[in-house]
Amino acid sequence: MGDTTAELVASALAGDRRSIAKVLSLVEQGGEGARTAISMLHPRSGNAWSVGITGAPGAGKSTLTDQLVLRMRATGGEVGVLAVDPTSPFSGGAILGDRVRMQSHTSDPGVFIRSMATRGHLGGLALATPQAVRVLDAVGKAWIVIETVGVGQVEVEIAGHADTTIVVVNPGWGDAVQAAKAGLLEIADIFVVNKADRPGADAAVADLQGMLELSARRAWTPPIVRTVATAGDGVDELFEAITQHRGHMESTGEAAARRAARLREELRALVAARVEQEVDARCSGAAFDALVAEVAARTRDPYTAADVLMAKKG
Amino acid sequence: MGDTTAELVASALAGDRRSIAKVLSLVEQGGEGARTAISMLHPRSGNAWSVGITGAPGAGKSTLTDQLVLRMRATGGEVGVLAVDPTSPFSGGAILGDRVRMQSHTSDPGVFIRSMATRGHLGGLALATPQAVRVLDAVGKAWIVIETVGVGQVEVEIAGHADTTIVVVNPGWGDAVQAAKAGLLEIADIFVVNKADRPGADAAVADLQGMLELSARRAWTPPIVRTVATAGDGVDELFEAITQHRGHMESTGEAAARRAARLREELRALVAARVEQEVDARCSGAAFDALVAEVAARTRDPYTAADVLMAKKG
Repeated sequence: MGDTTAELVASALAGDRRSIAKVLSLVEQGGEGARTAISMLHPRSGNAWSVGITGAPGAGKSTLTDQLVLRMRATGGEVGVLAVDPTSPFSGGAILGDRVRMQSHTSDPGVFIRSMATRGHLGGLALATPQAVRVLDAVGKAWIVIETVGVGQVEVEIAGHADTTIVVVNPGWGDAVQAAKAGLLEIADIFVVNKADRPGADAAVADLQGMLELSARRAWTPPIVRTVATAGDGVDELFEAITQHRGHMESTGEAAARRAARLREELRALVAARVEQEVDARCSGAAFDALVAEVAARTRDPYTAADVLMAKKG
Repeated sequence: MGDTTAELVASALAGDRRSIAKVLSLVEQGGEGARTAISMLHPRSGNAWSVGITGAPGAGKSTLTDQLVLRMRATGGEVGVLAVDPTSPFSGGAILGDRVRMQSHTSDPGVFIRSMATRGHLGGLALATPQAVRVLDAVGKAWIVIETVGVGQVEVEIAGHADTTIVVVNPGWGDAVQAAKAGLLEIADIFVVNKADRPGADAAVADLQGMLELSARRAWTPPIVRTVATAGDGVDELFEAITQHRGHMESTGEAAARRAARLREELRALVAARVEQEVDARCSGAAFDALVAEVAARTRDPYTAADVLMAKKG
């Protein structure tokens, strides 16, 4: 307690789990503490490979994540998991209840699991997630898995902002058309048909193949991997697909290009958030009311009123 | 022509139709000409009563507008009509083709009809419409009818920003639930069941009454008027309902309060549009690329990059 942010970050960099958790809370809050923490951590980031996992609720994403973490750990590197839930107001440890299957890792100090939720401010998660990835990256995680609870717009955006993005579907989950509608075809680097022991798995694979053939040709064709995550079936193949995708991205320079594009978007989002705060600040309060009254009284026109609002210190 | 904006506005104020049309084009474009024109016209505005008409395509809005314009003209005042179509890229005279029924007014110098369309920039119409209303108001139109082609979000917003808002439905057009879904229940000051000679008119009226009874009690209960616009049936009753609503709004002070609320929204929208331009200006060009490169190279962190972008002149 009473730790300065700098001390906290130093302790997180030394591997202290509670400090890592506190630093993640700081960056989620996004205030002065976040600035200090990120200024210290950003220079040490850039070494982790991030894997996004998205798909409908109940598709088996948590179980797949659990299995993948085991494979990632087998490579010797440490793993960070961000479980992102824009529909929940609870962050930190609060929604770990449904992550009971992850308990197999709780005794492994090389795995750090974190739940992230909205805390009520719009776009907050989309801004906070890259910062949280940056923290886990800087403190030495070699792999970072970003798992979302569903396939809402925010979740697809968040999971899509990874080095490798995995889209999980189920037999009969819906057809490939549904995946295309949700914008999943564009972001998927790898498709997983999980619960592939169920009827309809062949049809799901065929649907996805058909959609992929119809879509624009890319340098990387997303493979379709069948898994039964609960039994661990197909998870080796999935990890192999991730490794191949990583190799492709790194050898072609695509990885760096994609990261630069993500940075551009992140900066735009940061600027847009600040500018939004400014609009709110400018268009409220007594000074705003007075301006509206002047325009209503015809002693001032709307454009010069807007000039005054833009000139005002936000 | 080489007219200065000031000359053009003076000529529009003198009643010259071509000048009014040119001034409307200026305010639609929203540049320096719009500023000059509005600064001259805003002090002279505030006398017109605006009537918004919205409803599904084919509900008979144009025919109703045509009939209402005749009633309004009978009061001696001049009338301006804005036909707003966010789905069309054509402004000015271009979409007047479907306004052939309005030709009965083309020989009447007391009626000015203007089509407005998007010109491709998002939110452009929502910003431009209040300015166009201001122009018609300032040049002396006593009544301004704002007719939208459909019930999209932008159209409902535009038609709802009038002194009196009329929502037009048809028998079997859908039920009142559909109207409620589209947000029409909140904005309607008057409901019109047009084509009331068709089967299902009673059911449509009953549906609307049911929905109104379920909704929050207001000082003004929207009347439901049956019309057959093509035959002119019920249009006197509709104009009477408008007059009663106007009387209610003016006597209770609601009219001024609603106009002040619209002004607040207009100012917010003007500031938001400028701020968006600022974000675009800040997050583009060589300086932005250089900053992204610095963040990617870890010589700068995202927050201080955002600081630089915010400090930059927009």
